[in-house]
Amino acid sequence: MSDTPHRFIRALRRERNDRTPVWLMRQAGRYLPEYRATRERAGNFLNLCKTPELACEVTLQPLARFPLDAAILFSDILTVPDAMGLGLTLDEGVGPRFTHPLRDPAAAARLGIPDPETDLRYVTDAVRLIKRELQGKTPLIGFAGSPWTLATYMIEGGGHHDFKLVKNWLYGEPAAFEALVNLLADAVTVYLNAQIAAGVDAVMVFDTWGGVLTTDAYERYSLAPMQRIVQGLSPGTPNILFTKGGGLWLESMAATGCTGLGCDWSVDLGNARRRVGDLVALQGNLDPAILRAPVPVIEQEVDRVLDAFGGGAGHIFNLGHGITPDINPEHVAAMVARVHARQL
Amino acid sequence: MSDTPHRFIRALRRERNDRTPVWLMRQAGRYLPEYRATRERAGNFLNLCKTPELACEVTLQPLARFPLDAAILFSDILTVPDAMGLGLTLDEGVGPRFTHPLRDPAAAARLGIPDPETDLRYVTDAVRLIKRELQGKTPLIGFAGSPWTLATYMIEGGGHHDFKLVKNWLYGEPAAFEALVNLLADAVTVYLNAQIAAGVDAVMVFDTWGGVLTTDAYERYSLAPMQRIVQGLSPGTPNILFTKGGGLWLESMAATGCTGLGCDWSVDLGNARRRVGDLVALQGNLDPAILRAPVPVIEQEVDRVLDAFGGGAGHIFNLGHGITPDINPEHVAAMVARVHARQL
Repeated sequence: MSDTPHRFIRALRRERNDRTPVWLMRQAGRYLPEYRATRERAGNFLNLCKTPELACEVTLQPLARFPLDAAILFSDILTVPDAMGLGLTLDEGVGPRFTHPLRDPAAAARLGIPDPETDLRYVTDAVRLIKRELQGKTPLIGFAGSPWTLATYMIEGGGHHDFKLVKNWLYGEPAAFEALVNLLADAVTVYLNAQIAAGVDAVMVFDTWGGVLTTDAYERYSLAPMQRIVQGLSPGTPNILFTKGGGLWLESMAATGCTGLGCDWSVDLGNARRRVGDLVALQGNLDPAILRAPVPVIEQEVDRVLDAFGGGAGHIFNLGHGITPDINPEHVAAMVARVHARQL
Repeated sequence: MSDTPHRFIRALRRERNDRTPVWLMRQAGRYLPEYRATRERAGNFLNLCKTPELACEVTLQPLARFPLDAAILFSDILTVPDAMGLGLTLDEGVGPRFTHPLRDPAAAARLGIPDPETDLRYVTDAVRLIKRELQGKTPLIGFAGSPWTLATYMIEGGGHHDFKLVKNWLYGEPAAFEALVNLLADAVTVYLNAQIAAGVDAVMVFDTWGGVLTTDAYERYSLAPMQRIVQGLSPGTPNILFTKGGGLWLESMAATGCTGLGCDWSVDLGNARRRVGDLVALQGNLDPAILRAPVPVIEQEVDRVLDAFGGGAGHIFNLGHGITPDINPEHVAAMVARVHARQL
């Protein structure tokens, strides 16, 4: 556990900290042997998500190894469309697939908003369990997928093929598509507020595929629904928006009123700070590929990220995207130690 | 043929034009039935590239259909590593593969710079044939892959797996990797200068994979070698740099001294023009997915791109990436007509 709890929350509020807080996207994941053992017991990834005791167990595993400054709920961004009746499967090597993908606007019009305390009870139960275990020592992050990203998976049915189906819909039936992302924004808002009610200390919205849009389409179909979510969150809950490939759009993202922005590794944090650092905290952004390099290279690249941000308040160290299964946990330990070695 | 030749060159020089010039990345391609017929005769894609008469034939096909403002040499970015002895194959459905991918810096150190007039004679012969056929009516664009993009294919051996091998090398053996991209910069410079000597009117460097790098790695391993190319080109030859996913880096790209920048569809051209429009021309940037939409949507989105740039000198209309095989040629005709309908 961190010896200085809530460093993460202070950084999000752009308050002074002794050290830069650090956590990793997908920190509870396949690079950890203890995670692989628990997932083996669960049978598969989706069972692991849907069994609160096991989701709690894997959420806590990286905290037992590394002095991380935040825990993140173990779950998947596609739980919401699964609860809408699309039938999620998550098989290794195949990736996420829906048994009943959305094929036309008529099918989308029949979708309802899941009730988190019944349809997604396994998530709020996991949050309550994890919070009990954490005993207030480390903040817990809840999360959801962005409406555009969810729509992408729901319409493509799984692995995307150049986003052909979802873009055909977006450009061919813009009004119906806008109705779908707005419905998803409402479903995500309700879902995140249920996570907040169950105890999470902050929430993050993952917009994995926003970067494949034009600026105009991004603003309409990804950013506008994310803003709707930010505005609908329980007041006072710190929140982070992360659009992979969204470095061009940091100004409009910051203007949503969110608390922090996740940055992928293509962004220079110094540049990002000059653009939006008076409005939001910044989270990121080591290239996960660097964790395969020798430790001295990892340390040099951690320093480069810290130097790019430039010290002071408002930085949460993270990767620029999720950690990959091939990473040596000792390299993660070296990364975390290097971040914490520097006094702010 | 265009009724106002050299509109493309005037736009690159940011001189006044009557209309915005337009051409399409991969305009000689599988969406055209006449292209598919010629490729059938060639046997496969690589034979098509390597047979000057057939490369000339497909280069001219889109000009016979649409009043395009530029022709682009039909070839492939991987001809240079093929001429270096890596053994390129390009099978449909599999994509490009090298029989002898680069496995270590020692192998890279043994690479030499191909002599274009012998090792890549089929390219310069194609240029001479095409120039003869064009009779000065339409300018011809030559091209090459960027050193980083070539290195990616050469090291990964073909389809990339999260760029794992090439990033391992970049981060693990940075000096050897820098030597490789510098060698490739020299090979590309010699190759483009041979295309220029054979008659091309402008050249373009395709940096398909620059966007997967951090800002720092991009500047060192993709932009610096591209600058080396720009500085080594035969004086006075207009040139365009295109990094897909490079919208964050337009300022440093423009600072290379290049003539124009290609923009993918994520970039807002008005924003790009404010950032670098006094230094370079801008080329782009309709999302190719829009060409699958009904014609009125295509027209509206063409207008949106033209409006984003905002009129005046220095814009070349294009897609944000190559046209895909599933596009109806009539939709391309509608796009080109819409661009030319607007007086500047």
